[in-house]
Amino acid sequence: MPHLLSRRAVLVLAALLVSTAARAQEPLDQRYRADATRLIQAALADSAAYNRLATLTDRFGHRLSGSDALERTIDWAMEEMRRDGLQNVHGEPVMVPHWVRGEESAELLSPRAQPLHMIGLGGSVGTPAGGITADVLVVGSAEELAGRAADARGKIVLFDVPFTTYGETVRYRSLGAIAAAKAGAAAALIRSVSSFSMQNPHTGSMRYYDTTVVRLPAAAISVEDAMMLHRMQNRGERIRVRLSMGARTLPDVQSRNVVAEIVGRERPDEVVVVSGHLDSWDVGQGAMDDGGGSVAAWEAVRLMQRLGLRPRRTVRVVLWTNEENGVRGGAGYRDAHRAQLDQHVLAIESDNGVFRPFGFRFQGPDASLPMMRQIARLLEPIGAGRMEKGDGEADVGPMIALGVPGLALDVDGTKYFWYHHSSADTMDKLDPGEIARCVAAMAVAAYVVADMPGTIPHEVPRER
Amino acid sequence: MPHLLSRRAVLVLAALLVSTAARAQEPLDQRYRADATRLIQAALADSAAYNRLATLTDRFGHRLSGSDALERTIDWAMEEMRRDGLQNVHGEPVMVPHWVRGEESAELLSPRAQPLHMIGLGGSVGTPAGGITADVLVVGSAEELAGRAADARGKIVLFDVPFTTYGETVRYRSLGAIAAAKAGAAAALIRSVSSFSMQNPHTGSMRYYDTTVVRLPAAAISVEDAMMLHRMQNRGERIRVRLSMGARTLPDVQSRNVVAEIVGRERPDEVVVVSGHLDSWDVGQGAMDDGGGSVAAWEAVRLMQRLGLRPRRTVRVVLWTNEENGVRGGAGYRDAHRAQLDQHVLAIESDNGVFRPFGFRFQGPDASLPMMRQIARLLEPIGAGRMEKGDGEADVGPMIALGVPGLALDVDGTKYFWYHHSSADTMDKLDPGEIARCVAAMAVAAYVVADMPGTIPHEVPRER
Repeated sequence: MPHLLSRRAVLVLAALLVSTAARAQEPLDQRYRADATRLIQAALADSAAYNRLATLTDRFGHRLSGSDALERTIDWAMEEMRRDGLQNVHGEPVMVPHWVRGEESAELLSPRAQPLHMIGLGGSVGTPAGGITADVLVVGSAEELAGRAADARGKIVLFDVPFTTYGETVRYRSLGAIAAAKAGAAAALIRSVSSFSMQNPHTGSMRYYDTTVVRLPAAAISVEDAMMLHRMQNRGERIRVRLSMGARTLPDVQSRNVVAEIVGRERPDEVVVVSGHLDSWDVGQGAMDDGGGSVAAWEAVRLMQRLGLRPRRTVRVVLWTNEENGVRGGAGYRDAHRAQLDQHVLAIESDNGVFRPFGFRFQGPDASLPMMRQIARLLEPIGAGRMEKGDGEADVGPMIALGVPGLALDVDGTKYFWYHHSSADTMDKLDPGEIARCVAAMAVAAYVVADMPGTIPHEVPRER
Repeated sequence: MPHLLSRRAVLVLAALLVSTAARAQEPLDQRYRADATRLIQAALADSAAYNRLATLTDRFGHRLSGSDALERTIDWAMEEMRRDGLQNVHGEPVMVPHWVRGEESAELLSPRAQPLHMIGLGGSVGTPAGGITADVLVVGSAEELAGRAADARGKIVLFDVPFTTYGETVRYRSLGAIAAAKAGAAAALIRSVSSFSMQNPHTGSMRYYDTTVVRLPAAAISVEDAMMLHRMQNRGERIRVRLSMGARTLPDVQSRNVVAEIVGRERPDEVVVVSGHLDSWDVGQGAMDDGGGSVAAWEAVRLMQRLGLRPRRTVRVVLWTNEENGVRGGAGYRDAHRAQLDQHVLAIESDNGVFRPFGFRFQGPDASLPMMRQIARLLEPIGAGRMEKGDGEADVGPMIALGVPGLALDVDGTKYFWYHHSSADTMDKLDPGEIARCVAAMAVAAYVVADMPGTIPHEVPRER
């Protein structure tokens, strides 16, 4: 029916199709330069993210799973998200562990009396009422303990292990109580897992993975105190400590992942997750771990909304619950959305502090790395153009294990383990300009992946 | 009687006299190069100073005036000095203030409940039993308080003043309670006087200089907490705090300056003092303030003794008591030795932490600076060759005011106010190699001034 389209119309249509096809071939950093620039400029224009994080942390303080503060933070976040004009704002219920610290202390009794700077490890059992009073054996490694197991019987074992990397050193926090139990010890202490200390002890989770040994109370003491006890032992002094912990694990309680969206304009069922975790340890303010990641993810999506950048696919901000002592938020999301995971295009998370961003770590098929690097080039103007292979974050881990590609914000971590899981994880350590750059990086990555013509292939699931 | 001296003997004698005269003209850095090298090599040869300081701080902990720990440290130091073979080891009695902290706390009640990281200021009165519960007014300066005096009535005034220099910022610690009292406030809080914080509040002395106003309880809170309260006020939130302090001042008690000597081989009545203060605040270990200065001074003299370097004049190590809250040690020494101060050639002190030494600050006649710089050149091999005009330290201040020249060890102070007067003033912040350099610098300066042909003229006394 030639009368329906004039020759001129056919030519115009053909030209349009060719141009669209050419555009689909265009590198992402060319295609999205203008949108990325808008997002970056909007992120850097003010201190909105910093101010929102300050409001969150000042108003609610720390937010351990099971606490009232966490649930009130979740309620507040959803209210604010509705006010921001985000869509489908809701909480997705998930049952979380409810560990409570109770009263706790550690006191050096001999060679002289002095309170130690201690903090119980999350998940630990408590001591009997009145505490445990025992001599201390200080060891520098698990191997040293194995070689001195006879000396450890009935004692409080202190692992005075200097920080190397978090991954390496944290094993003593996770497993120290088991190693001490195997040696017949009465309790386990660790030197805080920290690269610099000002008498701030660092908590974090431990678990009784090995159920064949007794569950010993486990706590961290400050780096300073651990080194002091080690020096005392090296001088041949007898060290005696009273450890008292009221910790206990209550029945699981319900918490929620906070979810909000910009629904995709073309493929609403395809989803890019952009996320951080709202829960924290019960000390400090959880400003960098991970209030900052939560707010950066949220602000990234709010900026798209404010700028009218509605991508092809759905962008879903998720503020996880219970990263710290269970990752039940991430596991619950995987379970609740299992049928839709094939349509999860990418799972982004920030959980290394909202310090100066360098770029991202990408966990996905090698074949997609060049495309991801095109996106990273859009962040070169703010120094965040790095895109390397590497592991995604904990909360999106359950999804990634099922094949969903992951993207982790990579930041300057120089001081992260100074503050991490301690009273010093507070707002003042963060910089409004650096947070704004994190927001920009999250926004550009999420937007481009949600809007680009192609997708990143899933990998073969590692679990089912 | 020409037969008594041969012509040859006369020539030899004349040559000797000429050579001695020439030697007296020789710059000090040539004359003492060999001795200085021996002292430096001996100081750097091992970790003796670090180990002695670790023993001191681990065994006795902090050492506030009036405490048993201070007096036991003094006893121990004298015992060790005798064992070192020093001469005339003794304690010189002096009456010192006896302020005790008691139980103390500050708790945020509104806008949410949270314990604050607080420490009472030394010299403060306590609160009534049950504490003071009041709204908080946060001000950024004394000028701001003056402009808002009507708002301050009945409130707890918090001075949230960012650290610039110690000299400038510490005025709020010294005088904040007076300014708050003049505005009719109920108590005074200050942001800790510190250039970097990990929730470690910093104490230090305050005094009620102005006796016309009421004595308000005064405490420091952590930098983090001060900034948080300021943010809350900026948001228009009502801040309510309960401050509870059991502080009180007991009658003065006797303490001692520790004194030990190498008696001069030619002019035993002429004295070079080399010193640090043994007392500390009642928090942390007083490792850098000023156990380190004490041990560096002591080790400097021990090294001379061990190397058989007995100078022309007496070298007197003095470990002061009560620098922190009274300077009664320095004042008592001045009073007890008033008649001998004309023969005090130089008063050296280290009280800025035993970090990497740059050299010295010299408080004395400008005309002597070139000679002092000759001495400093001997320390160039360890990077401590700086000799600038500047103030001496607190304990030797009373002597300096009477004309005795002063020399203060000048060190890399980058991190000093991170730790100063807080729980984080501990051994692990110090480096054995840096302490050894401090020992070397003190030893060379003290030895050369005690042995050199000339002396530094006294200045006209500023007080009598």
